[in-house]
Amino acid sequence: MGELSELFAPETVAVVGATEREGSVGRAIMDNLVADFDGTVVPVNPNYDEVLGIPCVSDIGAADADLAVVVVPPKIAVEAVRQAGESGVRNVVVITAGFGETGSEGAARERELREVAEQYDLNLVGPNSLGIMSTGVDMNATFGPENAQPGGMSFMSQSGAFITAVLDWANDQDIGFRDVVSLGNKAVLDEADFVREWGDDPETDVVIGYLEGIEEGREFIDAAREVTQDTPIVLVKSGRTDAGAQAASSHTGTIAGSDEAYETGLEQAGVIRAESVQELFDSAQMLGSQPLPEQDDVAIITNAGGPGVMATDAVGDSGLSMASFSDETLDTFSENLPAEGNIYNPVDVVGDAGNDRFRNALEIALDDENVGCAVVLSAPTAVLDYAQLARDTVELSEEFDKPVAACFMGGQRVEPAAEVLKDAGIPNYFDPARAVDSLDALSEYADISAREYDEPTEFDVDREAAHEILSAVKGRGDNRLGVEAMDLLDAYGIPTPHGEIVDSATDAEAIAADIEGDVVMKIVSPDILHKSDIGGVKVGVSDDDVYDAYEDLITRARNYQPDAEIIGVQVQEMVDLDSGVETIVGMNRDPQFGPLLLFGLGGIFVEILEDTTFRVAPVAESEAKEMTEEIDSAPLLRGARGRDPADVPAVVETIQRLSQLVTDFPAILELDINPLVATPDGVQAVDVRLTVDPDQL
Amino acid sequence: MGELSELFAPETVAVVGATEREGSVGRAIMDNLVADFDGTVVPVNPNYDEVLGIPCVSDIGAADADLAVVVVPPKIAVEAVRQAGESGVRNVVVITAGFGETGSEGAARERELREVAEQYDLNLVGPNSLGIMSTGVDMNATFGPENAQPGGMSFMSQSGAFITAVLDWANDQDIGFRDVVSLGNKAVLDEADFVREWGDDPETDVVIGYLEGIEEGREFIDAAREVTQDTPIVLVKSGRTDAGAQAASSHTGTIAGSDEAYETGLEQAGVIRAESVQELFDSAQMLGSQPLPEQDDVAIITNAGGPGVMATDAVGDSGLSMASFSDETLDTFSENLPAEGNIYNPVDVVGDAGNDRFRNALEIALDDENVGCAVVLSAPTAVLDYAQLARDTVELSEEFDKPVAACFMGGQRVEPAAEVLKDAGIPNYFDPARAVDSLDALSEYADISAREYDEPTEFDVDREAAHEILSAVKGRGDNRLGVEAMDLLDAYGIPTPHGEIVDSATDAEAIAADIEGDVVMKIVSPDILHKSDIGGVKVGVSDDDVYDAYEDLITRARNYQPDAEIIGVQVQEMVDLDSGVETIVGMNRDPQFGPLLLFGLGGIFVEILEDTTFRVAPVAESEAKEMTEEIDSAPLLRGARGRDPADVPAVVETIQRLSQLVTDFPAILELDINPLVATPDGVQAVDVRLTVDPDQL
Repeated sequence: MGELSELFAPETVAVVGATEREGSVGRAIMDNLVADFDGTVVPVNPNYDEVLGIPCVSDIGAADADLAVVVVPPKIAVEAVRQAGESGVRNVVVITAGFGETGSEGAARERELREVAEQYDLNLVGPNSLGIMSTGVDMNATFGPENAQPGGMSFMSQSGAFITAVLDWANDQDIGFRDVVSLGNKAVLDEADFVREWGDDPETDVVIGYLEGIEEGREFIDAAREVTQDTPIVLVKSGRTDAGAQAASSHTGTIAGSDEAYETGLEQAGVIRAESVQELFDSAQMLGSQPLPEQDDVAIITNAGGPGVMATDAVGDSGLSMASFSDETLDTFSENLPAEGNIYNPVDVVGDAGNDRFRNALEIALDDENVGCAVVLSAPTAVLDYAQLARDTVELSEEFDKPVAACFMGGQRVEPAAEVLKDAGIPNYFDPARAVDSLDALSEYADISAREYDEPTEFDVDREAAHEILSAVKGRGDNRLGVEAMDLLDAYGIPTPHGEIVDSATDAEAIAADIEGDVVMKIVSPDILHKSDIGGVKVGVSDDDVYDAYEDLITRARNYQPDAEIIGVQVQEMVDLDSGVETIVGMNRDPQFGPLLLFGLGGIFVEILEDTTFRVAPVAESEAKEMTEEIDSAPLLRGARGRDPADVPAVVETIQRLSQLVTDFPAILELDINPLVATPDGVQAVDVRLTVDPDQL
Repeated sequence: MGELSELFAPETVAVVGATEREGSVGRAIMDNLVADFDGTVVPVNPNYDEVLGIPCVSDIGAADADLAVVVVPPKIAVEAVRQAGESGVRNVVVITAGFGETGSEGAARERELREVAEQYDLNLVGPNSLGIMSTGVDMNATFGPENAQPGGMSFMSQSGAFITAVLDWANDQDIGFRDVVSLGNKAVLDEADFVREWGDDPETDVVIGYLEGIEEGREFIDAAREVTQDTPIVLVKSGRTDAGAQAASSHTGTIAGSDEAYETGLEQAGVIRAESVQELFDSAQMLGSQPLPEQDDVAIITNAGGPGVMATDAVGDSGLSMASFSDETLDTFSENLPAEGNIYNPVDVVGDAGNDRFRNALEIALDDENVGCAVVLSAPTAVLDYAQLARDTVELSEEFDKPVAACFMGGQRVEPAAEVLKDAGIPNYFDPARAVDSLDALSEYADISAREYDEPTEFDVDREAAHEILSAVKGRGDNRLGVEAMDLLDAYGIPTPHGEIVDSATDAEAIAADIEGDVVMKIVSPDILHKSDIGGVKVGVSDDDVYDAYEDLITRARNYQPDAEIIGVQVQEMVDLDSGVETIVGMNRDPQFGPLLLFGLGGIFVEILEDTTFRVAPVAESEAKEMTEEIDSAPLLRGARGRDPADVPAVVETIQRLSQLVTDFPAILELDINPLVATPDGVQAVDVRLTVDPDQL
């Protein structure tokens, strides 16, 4: 158990605000605790001598509790928590609502609560929480109507109603839990804390949750990465869609970070993201009880051809693949199955198969080292005893230590078999696709638990130079920088074309003379965003024309916008766009996850096809490499259609260097290198735009 | 009822091969018929005087039956069918297996069976069928263990085992059926026949099915288009994935057509394609019982914020949208909901809502004309009576004639409510996403039933000229044609650049002189596929260089492949690729659906991004137009990034003209116009390749 062990296994729980009043929250919590809790319950209320026959103390200090559950009205709740802290209680669950979720007065109260918690180093759940449960000590410190049954899932939820709904349903399905937490407003303890705690708890087999937001994205990623080496995490993070994000924001005041950030952040964290309640529990049940497959190859054993084909489609839809049997296995099937059967995967044992033939086929398949897991898929027949098939399935799964999913189709006749399967932790489904999907979750987690996370490379950079360039915004009315910040990229070792910004025509000539071949010239002004539209860009200027080009650019800019601040004219080496691929490397700062890196090919690929990929920075080399591989248009980088491949390692390094830059400087709010031209000989950052918060420098 | 009415409502059923032998198919069918059938059952078997106490006739002619169910061994089955036809029986179900599914002898037997059926104009189901059911006359003419309960779904399946599995489950769930057909090998009657029949049957509310293949794609599309104006069709068509297609092929010998053809064919047919068994029945249950929404806007009414957000995400994932309430509705909500509630969609009536508040909120929402349908979503609370909420839901749904989906979350406490809902045809789900998805199916079908299918345009073309050009393959050892068939496109009014194929350098000069500007010259040879690789294409040849270019092209071709057949050199007008967008218009012939048209942008868009779309030909103008709109890269055609839009109507017309060409000539096995260059001023087909089957000309 981790740091929160006492929160989930207290010896004495004090209920601050305990009462007997029917229908009150204080009564409901007392009822729930008294009904089951292994330890001592102490009601705290100066107005009563006893509550439900239990002597009442007037002061938390007199309770000698290691957990305080606070249900007093909001106006006195913070004071109650302070007294708890003062008296040495370290674990507090604040049920009371009327904090951050209710306007400015509540928000102030929540800040105060956080300060008190910090002062006394409290493990504080809530406020605005349904409470917590832990079946290890039979503690139901919630005001919900149902206690949890014991089991291996630890469950956190940002919706109390969802907890009551799930428990009502789960108790009916014999699905058990270890700990349950209603997160409430997450003033102190948040999802990262519980993930860490449950990762350290040997009794937790799988962590599940419903979240509307994540407080500290990077902290969560780091915590989850460690935990998911041993313990799977499956989450529904709602607000996936625009409509959902808006609803989440109005529900819990969650500031909507982009779903791209959540999607990549959860992926980087090793979290399995479920898209629905059904998927959450289907995945969690298998993950909590079944062995992990050593490979992704599924064998389907069925007595029903049609459903076998449906299951095969589901395998095609999943990350799994159909196992190819060894020659030996095929021979054994040939000897053991009737001629009308199918010895290839999906294996058809034929409708007249009795239990022996079915068991035999499953055994042959599981014995094949090319098989990582199996689906036992059956239509009801007169010659097949489902309960026996269930026993055989469980026995063989255990014998070979390979996960098996069950799809015994039918109605009531399935029930005895489903009981046998459930006791062994194998859910049974009517739909072959659900059985396959539950194996897919196992396989996904097998990959996650085998992940090795590299450290980000630390490049040798000129951080001071970068700081100085960024500081240029301090004296200006505008916090945006453009090509005048190209040196920022140089400072972080990102290649840029030769060139400089000049403020006279003769200087322009001098720079151009130093550059081989023709040059590109661009007006540099924070006030002129669309340079091309006003003729502010000249491509292929020969040395002889540089002087006039300079004058012309300045004139155009002045005519276009007389009051524009003009920094000068950039004179830059021509980059051969035809021999390269235009890419974009960028960063936006997400409210939860911080710096979110973007990569894609330029032009239509980003603008029209939206073919982009994201990572939360800092990224390791392997992650930067994945970004260059997973966009749809990646083959163009690798030299499709007879072209020479671009220098992809240079692109990967640029992503890493940008990652380091934006991690080093939280003041950079957004930054785009567009285009970063990638040729067979390297990369060049041709243009850059960024926004800087001077207050963070 | 349609043409097959007698098949599903016979007065007398003869069982040819009836027997009392335990465990036999003949016995099982007799048992099933005797148990329930409203009409007369006549066993036919020369070896018995009676079967199960019913007098047995030795000859089908003596049975006076209007339906014969044939279960005799394969060797005498065809003869039994012949005798049935001879004696005037028009409806035959062949249960017997050992036909096309079992090698060449069986295939011959199946051909014979088809001939007999044709001779006597039989409505023949099977062979290799589980049988048929019709609850209208309580007929279970299958050898499965369960009879269906009455209901409004008519169900066909290419898997008998799937029928037994579904019935076992459905009977437990109180899901009823009208007719059930095990299609077997579909020697005579196939899915199109049953779709037509059930479309004419007023007792069928929804047609559902499991198919591994469709026999006659175009016929099925036409039949389904008509039926789906009034009756929804929901199908699982397996073999969606490569693995699944392979499994389907080994299961029923279905020749794998491309899934692109099925996907577009089913879409063009107006069929809702379910991807899983769960989706099939979730959709079908709603479609069979609920009114269609007049618009796609959903109101979510909930007492639980978190699940409300999840449901909103599900709406975001679906084709539905979140309803925006009228100002009047918002005012009414404000007056009726507590301040902590949410009057915007999803409407949160808050956890302390009793039945009155919940009902009231649903009524306010359904009364808003911006609301097309609703989800009633509830977590269990102490103050809410689920059964009453269910009655309110049903009542209000009926009062406003708007569909409502139910997600009453919880365990056993939900059961009485679920019963009330089920009686009104509203399934209840634990998962909000499933409730939303079932509404989505209603909305999808509302669009389908409102579709108007245009007739394909008949262009004035030169069919004889086309025939002559195609006939060029007759004298050759190769059935592929290239640019030498450009006139084929001209014959069908598809614009091509000026140019001709010549076989002398002086002719080349003459043609080039007639063409304004420089020309493109290409070697024309069926034996040289990759012309560019051997330098067989010259772009931008000026008039002066044409002679030498001709000689050079011929020399290169001879050197490259001395035995290549060289038809000549094409001299063609230059097409300005830079001012246009390269597209591809093509056709492949699918084994089931026939001519499958393809459209996409050329180059990387087709080759790397696989950004293509398909339609079964012939297509109407509206369908051709959709093709140009639904690819991801469509904005490029419409003039993205500051370019002039291409002449999209000319592209649409080209697709239609190609559609007419490949419909007129089944001999064209495949054809690609690549590129078809689309500029603001029209289109030009720059290159063409096709394969022709001379035997079909």
